Amino acid sequence: MTPPPTSTVPPYVSLIVRILTLICLLISFIVIATNNQTVSTVAGDVKIKFKDFYAYRYLIATVIIGMAYTLLQIAFSISLLTTGNRIGGEGFLLFDFYGDKFISYFLVTGAAASFGMTQDLKQLEGSDNYSKFLNTSNAAASLCLIGFFFAVASSIFSSYNLPKRI
Amino acid sequence: MTPPPTSTVPPYVSLIVRILTLICLLISFIVIATNNQTVSTVAGDVKIKFKDFYAYRYLIATVIIGMAYTLLQIAFSISLLTTGNRIGGEGFLLFDFYGDKFISYFLVTGAAASFGMTQDLKQLEGSDNYSKFLNTSNAAASLCLIGFFFAVASSIFSSYNLPKRI
Repeated sequence: MTPPPTSTVPPYVSLIVRILTLICLLISFIVIATNNQTVSTVAGDVKIKFKDFYAYRYLIATVIIGMAYTLLQIAFSISLLTTGNRIGGEGFLLFDFYGDKFISYFLVTGAAASFGMTQDLKQLEGSDNYSKFLNTSNAAASLCLIGFFFAVASSIFSSYNLPKRI
Repeated sequence: MTPPPTSTVPPYVSLIVRILTLICLLISFIVIATNNQTVSTVAGDVKIKFKDFYAYRYLIATVIIGMAYTLLQIAFSISLLTTGNRIGGEGFLLFDFYGDKFISYFLVTGAAASFGMTQDLKQLEGSDNYSKFLNTSNAAASLCLIGFFFAVASSIFSSYNLPKRI
């Protein structure tokens, strides 16, 4: 029987990836939360915001939960780098594995729901009036998608770390 | 150094999960492909189909690719169960790991894009005329989501199998 792999990802690489995830999610959050456009309708001017669409509300929820989880993991990584010990011990490898998996699925659903909605909304009559709003929302969803790619990298790392658990 | 874990998931469990994935995706495919509704408009009767919406076209694409991949994996599993050898050898553990990961992300985006679009489309004026179409589409997206959950199980199994690679 050969020993389990010891050449897992260095802690600082893992930390950098998590910081990149956080940056993408933070910018996505700011973009979606500040996005609004005033549209002229027969009933007067109407200000549209992310709250008016289920898909964008879901996007902002995924981004906030993703940021909270990533911040927690960054704290764990810094503690590992400074003290050499992982808070919670080796049992936390399982937490990382399932946590990273769940958060990455969660983030990609936020981005996909927004893209799916925006793409078909653009086909509707009158959507030209708020195309700026839709384009900015798409930018926020794209940032969430980039954050998701970094989260996938974290998830792959934590899968490779699983054998350490034994 | 302790040996790597040997108690991975039995091949027949893995096969059953993949068959369940395939069944969900197949039903989802049939539901979405046969879904249509005739809507009366000022310009006469219009038949709406999944092709008229980007999100549903994306859903059907993810379901088809998911089915093709799952069929391939079922063939591999049956070969493993009958001959005791995995086609492609141990190197295929990495293929399973990344393949399962990719397909599960892919399936969940299909479901999320459809849900995101349908939910906001239902808020629009006149959407009552084709609510049957939207509800059936939601059912297809739900089946894709259930298929995704089975795909996640496969993905977890293949992550646990990774240490075998060494």
